[in-house]
Amino acid sequence: MSGRLITVEGLDGAGKSTLAVALVDALRARGADVELLREPGGVLLAERIRTLVKDPALPCGPRAEALLYAAARAQLVEETLAPALASGRTVLLDRFVDSSLAYQGAGRELGVAEIAALNAFATGGLTPDRTLLLRVAPETGRARLDDRGDAPDRLELAGTEFFARVASAYDELAAAEPTRFRVLDAGRTAPEVLADALGALRDLVP
Amino acid sequence: MSGRLITVEGLDGAGKSTLAVALVDALRARGADVELLREPGGVLLAERIRTLVKDPALPCGPRAEALLYAAARAQLVEETLAPALASGRTVLLDRFVDSSLAYQGAGRELGVAEIAALNAFATGGLTPDRTLLLRVAPETGRARLDDRGDAPDRLELAGTEFFARVASAYDELAAAEPTRFRVLDAGRTAPEVLADALGALRDLVP
Repeated sequence: MSGRLITVEGLDGAGKSTLAVALVDALRARGADVELLREPGGVLLAERIRTLVKDPALPCGPRAEALLYAAARAQLVEETLAPALASGRTVLLDRFVDSSLAYQGAGRELGVAEIAALNAFATGGLTPDRTLLLRVAPETGRARLDDRGDAPDRLELAGTEFFARVASAYDELAAAEPTRFRVLDAGRTAPEVLADALGALRDLVP
Repeated sequence: MSGRLITVEGLDGAGKSTLAVALVDALRARGADVELLREPGGVLLAERIRTLVKDPALPCGPRAEALLYAAARAQLVEETLAPALASGRTVLLDRFVDSSLAYQGAGRELGVAEIAALNAFATGGLTPDRTLLLRVAPETGRARLDDRGDAPDRLELAGTEFFARVASAYDELAAAEPTRFRVLDAGRTAPEVLADALGALRDLVP
């Protein structure tokens, strides 16, 4: 028996965390055994790594950044994700490997294939059963972030061209794997996006 | 103009740090412009990563461990090592990629080729001009560590078979690259090992 792995992906400000929380509630209300995890984080080592990669004051080059995200992911897989899936639970994950392909591979221009190889090592090749890509115009995502008023982290400080590369990479990943990916219009209201997401998971989580 | 990169490798307790400090003094006394760095560390991010990987209380699987060492190394290369070499300085490094090949690749049984690929990404393919391998019997290294009386870190807590794999891997690496590697008998006295090391660097640092 093996559980399902569902990931939520998209630009900052696309509404991933909002959707993930609402989705877990909706799926649990239907009787599903669902666990919500976030990246980078979810286990002690990954939370400690999160404080390093999110700190704009700490010098961290693109290769070190990509390796730190992969390290946090490796520990999450070993400590929590693989055991949960092995026990048959459904896991909803706010960001996973596709984030690194888009942000580090394309955004930081380290190469999508190189980042994929790194992450295959980190995860042992674990691939989501379904990935919900929340598609939003980079300007809209940026405006939502600004509205939140939080201090921006290192990635959020990157420029407009960076986010355009990330958005294009997400589109290309979705086009390359149409069975795994479902692209949702994240410019709609939160209840509408939730309804779309539930529709996109109907074959996986009855 | 490009400086020389010299690395010191070997089992814990082989006397790497003692040799590195004495070697820098001896080379400086001869007028060489030498910088000493240690791994994992040498830059702020790497020192922060060091506290994570060295903490036996923090759950950290073998893949996460290998990725953290590579992340620390990537930042050291970008921030300090590459600029120092580009400016013509000689850099003496206490552990580098070969430590990961031996400890994570062979010791943790993750595969030497996989760890080499990971580190090629981290370092951009940077290879030492000379590597001094301090060869010591695993039992001797272990006894010296015990004499120090420090609390053992995560790697030092690994068992006898682990260290036997690490020692064999170092021997194989040295045999595969006889021009880069010089194997020194670390069972001798510190002044004898220093004299051997100076002899092994004569062609690089006049």
